[in-house]
Amino acid sequence: MDFPSEFGRLADRVEHGLDRYLPPATTRPARLHEAMRYSLQAGGKRLRPVLVLATARLYGAQEDAALPAAVAIECLHTYSLIHDDLPCMDNDDLRRGRPTAHRQFDEATALLAGDALLTHAFALLAENYAGQPALAGALTRELAAAAGSRRLIGGQMEDLLAEKRAATVADLEFIHLNKTAAMIEASLVLGGLVGGADAAAVAMLREVGRHLGLAFQIIDDILDATADSSTLGKTAGKDAKAGKTTFVKLHGLTVSRQLAKEHSTTACAALRRLQGDTTFLLALVEAMAARSH
Amino acid sequence: MDFPSEFGRLADRVEHGLDRYLPPATTRPARLHEAMRYSLQAGGKRLRPVLVLATARLYGAQEDAALPAAVAIECLHTYSLIHDDLPCMDNDDLRRGRPTAHRQFDEATALLAGDALLTHAFALLAENYAGQPALAGALTRELAAAAGSRRLIGGQMEDLLAEKRAATVADLEFIHLNKTAAMIEASLVLGGLVGGADAAAVAMLREVGRHLGLAFQIIDDILDATADSSTLGKTAGKDAKAGKTTFVKLHGLTVSRQLAKEHSTTACAALRRLQGDTTFLLALVEAMAARSH
Repeated sequence: MDFPSEFGRLADRVEHGLDRYLPPATTRPARLHEAMRYSLQAGGKRLRPVLVLATARLYGAQEDAALPAAVAIECLHTYSLIHDDLPCMDNDDLRRGRPTAHRQFDEATALLAGDALLTHAFALLAENYAGQPALAGALTRELAAAAGSRRLIGGQMEDLLAEKRAATVADLEFIHLNKTAAMIEASLVLGGLVGGADAAAVAMLREVGRHLGLAFQIIDDILDATADSSTLGKTAGKDAKAGKTTFVKLHGLTVSRQLAKEHSTTACAALRRLQGDTTFLLALVEAMAARSH
Repeated sequence: MDFPSEFGRLADRVEHGLDRYLPPATTRPARLHEAMRYSLQAGGKRLRPVLVLATARLYGAQEDAALPAAVAIECLHTYSLIHDDLPCMDNDDLRRGRPTAHRQFDEATALLAGDALLTHAFALLAENYAGQPALAGALTRELAAAAGSRRLIGGQMEDLLAEKRAATVADLEFIHLNKTAAMIEASLVLGGLVGGADAAAVAMLREVGRHLGLAFQIIDDILDATADSSTLGKTAGKDAKAGKTTFVKLHGLTVSRQLAKEHSTTACAALRRLQGDTTFLLALVEAMAARSH
């Protein structure tokens, strides 16, 4: 398997899915639907929806069957970025090298576009899996829990609070487990559920997702501290400058690289215990881990 | 039936439901969960969740069975108020006589508390109706559609756009049908679905909700133009001052009162075509209509 071209193929399916499963930009109110599409089509790696498709395939599901769940995850992720970029949060002007939604449109439109993408994620699951109500319910419960006040939103809240006080190792773990790992976990679990994975497999997918998510966040911290802005497509050194406590600040570069490696290794070990052809997912974890060197 | 005391009893059940179905205020992050409860417990008439309970009862459902759906509607309504009050939207300092969420906490906390209440509404439906997956799916589809970019959020977006240009009669109808009537419609439909109403009854409930919602909004405009702030619990004349186009501005007080009456009458006529004891719902529509005199 040629990993980059297979990743590209799946990401391309996601792009088509985003266009297919979002209301047309001309839908009234056009400004709102344009803003939803602007942020969603700003690119990015499409890591989460690709994980949904690749995991569903492990259990023999057709990519078409997993596509609405993949698009729902990307809608949810994009909403969290739009709201995170707002002036009252991180106040970012650039995202993936383009103006953030509130810079391109205005704050109110960005706020509402985020709200609409969050709502649309649940609409997509409820509408597209209506023929399999038990599956639709399981997908909705998983997404709502991962995105809720104890996980994604809770992680964002603690992240904000951590700017005002010295975050401890335990605080940072809470933030990363919830702000970052929750949605990576949910991506694998949604894929598994669409494929019909049993409870034991879902638990294993959750473990893969948790360690992959933690590795991903640590590597993000390492790159924030070491790479330049043009490589990142966003302002480098931003987190350090904002006074945010990062893995690198708490543990130093050497230990951070070691921690990232440990989480990647654990994710791979859990992947190898799954049935099905995990070649692509293993290559994905390794490609990600390689970025930290 | 004593309408005020029956309304009070149902509203009281809703209060208990809100406490029961929200995460404890001590759940980490406590600041986020405190803000969710602060806004939710700020009072208000509880019109929407009372409609859910009263409609479910028409079809013989126990109030307990409808309570999670009632709480979900109130979570969704409260999120829309929190985001609507933010500085980039209406920039309101007071809501129901108390500081708005962003004045009591801060903008970021208010933003996240709104996001969390929206997400929690879907979690409540998915978790509490998991034993009846087809019902859970129908409830989720209804709520997601009513709250989505074409309806609730679309209405808010058009409302903002209408501040910058002269709104037409058609614009105002779009705004009120979606910003106000969508969630009133959804309240009746969710109640009907929990009670097991058939498709014809659901369509009739939708008509009741649409006309009740439009009457409600016109009466709100009339009160904004005629009542004082202490009666309203919010700033009177605010909409007129903000340059918003209202029913009263477009049609004058006399025609607005007549329109409100027509919508109330149509709602009552549709209610009378439903099976079951609609005494309470009829009294509710009449009590609301009486406020405009």
